[in-house]
Amino acid sequence: MNISRRLVRSLVMTLLGGLSFIALPAAAQDPLPSWNDTGPKKAIIAFVARVTKPGTPDFVPVNQRIATFDNDGTLWAEQPVYFQFEFAIDRIKLLSAGHPEWKTQEPFASLMEGDIPRALARGEQDVVDAISATHAGMTTEAFDRIARDWIRTKRDARFKRTYISLVYQPMIELLDYLRANGFKTFIVSGGGAEFIRAFAEEAYGIPPDQVVGSSGRLKYQMRGDVPELLKLPAVDFINDKDGKVVGIQKFIGRRPIAAFGNSDGDQQMLEWTAAGKGPRLALLVHHTDATREWAYDRDSRIGTLDKALDMAVEKKWTVVSMKDDWNAIFPKQ
Amino acid sequence: MNISRRLVRSLVMTLLGGLSFIALPAAAQDPLPSWNDTGPKKAIIAFVARVTKPGTPDFVPVNQRIATFDNDGTLWAEQPVYFQFEFAIDRIKLLSAGHPEWKTQEPFASLMEGDIPRALARGEQDVVDAISATHAGMTTEAFDRIARDWIRTKRDARFKRTYISLVYQPMIELLDYLRANGFKTFIVSGGGAEFIRAFAEEAYGIPPDQVVGSSGRLKYQMRGDVPELLKLPAVDFINDKDGKVVGIQKFIGRRPIAAFGNSDGDQQMLEWTAAGKGPRLALLVHHTDATREWAYDRDSRIGTLDKALDMAVEKKWTVVSMKDDWNAIFPKQ
Repeated sequence: MNISRRLVRSLVMTLLGGLSFIALPAAAQDPLPSWNDTGPKKAIIAFVARVTKPGTPDFVPVNQRIATFDNDGTLWAEQPVYFQFEFAIDRIKLLSAGHPEWKTQEPFASLMEGDIPRALARGEQDVVDAISATHAGMTTEAFDRIARDWIRTKRDARFKRTYISLVYQPMIELLDYLRANGFKTFIVSGGGAEFIRAFAEEAYGIPPDQVVGSSGRLKYQMRGDVPELLKLPAVDFINDKDGKVVGIQKFIGRRPIAAFGNSDGDQQMLEWTAAGKGPRLALLVHHTDATREWAYDRDSRIGTLDKALDMAVEKKWTVVSMKDDWNAIFPKQ
Repeated sequence: MNISRRLVRSLVMTLLGGLSFIALPAAAQDPLPSWNDTGPKKAIIAFVARVTKPGTPDFVPVNQRIATFDNDGTLWAEQPVYFQFEFAIDRIKLLSAGHPEWKTQEPFASLMEGDIPRALARGEQDVVDAISATHAGMTTEAFDRIARDWIRTKRDARFKRTYISLVYQPMIELLDYLRANGFKTFIVSGGGAEFIRAFAEEAYGIPPDQVVGSSGRLKYQMRGDVPELLKLPAVDFINDKDGKVVGIQKFIGRRPIAAFGNSDGDQQMLEWTAAGKGPRLALLVHHTDATREWAYDRDSRIGTLDKALDMAVEKKWTVVSMKDDWNAIFPKQ
């Protein structure tokens, strides 16, 4: 996945999609080869055809073709715990030499031992604060280097793949397909924006300014005569549930016409998207494939899919069964 | 200024700029006709040539060609007071029927009489709170409609032009020129993001998600079974001075290589931009033309240009004299 090749390709596809009045050779190739010819693929292709046909009532101008994607569990895997959580645990281990008190202090002690349930036992806020501490006290540029490196070199326990290769091949095809049809694609994630930006351009073709996520406070200061941005150990914005709709308005400023998620954290984003006028696509990825990936929904602590699944049935949103609707999960290596 | 024509044009120009390896007919037309052939125009063209020439050490890949523009006083006028301030005063007058107490309550009383100095006498915070109140208590969509209409119909006292036509023609050419060379152009303004978004796409070809500005808090809620975003009368983020650099990181996530401002509020943005590695363009618009526009700098309450002007001299930033370097100010009507 070479950045400049992806960008040029993305640019060309955007142009081809945007200038749909130019005659093009018929697209002989399947744009979504990792999707089986089942309901979700048909729904996606029908939606795109509907909004891109000039002169029809459902036509949507290019500048309004906004598509938002959750990240964890929608664009890449999230089990057994969010990858940023794994990253934070590695940071705690690395920094622990300078913090002997962590050996007995919770949640650090449990996190270093990999006992996540015990770490979470005292409440999520403690863990969030601990993660926040490992992401602060450095410049934004230093953090970017650390995250960039970890995501590309560290491998997960089950698949033995680098984290950056635990992205979903069908969703990468979907992102490309939407951009080829004039859509602007955004990530709208509960995860940290700076963490996602460290790989989203290479993995998904999504530039940093199209990543909306949770964030910590920043401080602009001079080190000698060199300006720098310091990451502070304080949460600024949590981009989850209601916060995703707020984040969409703050960062994108326009209601999406298509939204993609996998958990209750995405329910409001899909609800907001679906409630707009005209054709809308609201899609949930349902993790149903314990063999090739993971199977979980209502009872999972990570990526809980419960209320949003009920709403999907009620509102007739598109639900992807990874087992039945995808013929590939991760990119070939 | 038709939106879809602008968008298609912008898309084509982006492609032509991005795919600079494709042979193009020599650009016979001057891309910056409203700029005199003086220092600033030469500096801009030399900078763009330098960063877009493949195979040279100064070449900057398309995805890193980020240019940020202040809005008030840089892309459109800002005297005798910020236009959003005029908008807020009109809102106060309109809402005053339901608020009889405002007739004696400051700063409302002074604002309704148009006595800005007296309104500001008790401190800026009171005025900011009053403006904030006029921008809240409605949905984001209702606010957008109100702002969109006001900016296109209300005329200023001196030039008798609609506010949307008080944009600077040379800067519009500059935005187009940068985009034609593969730049992604952003507004980074102390003004309200939602207010600027109501006209930036039509006036500048800048879509809502590329507008970074100050903002109020939002609340996602259901009205019956219809979701809505309510604007709350509380400031969330002030995108000015240090805040502009923080805003750039939060919203864009990448350091600009070119930045354009006109006041001390832009100093940190230009400093941050200029401090990056490789070629950089930091430019200040100096208001020197009392005949065609306004002349002000160090002593002006609006758009104070004092410390940033000293820094521009010290750091050899480009300074545009509107009187000497621009042969047109506003678009022809």
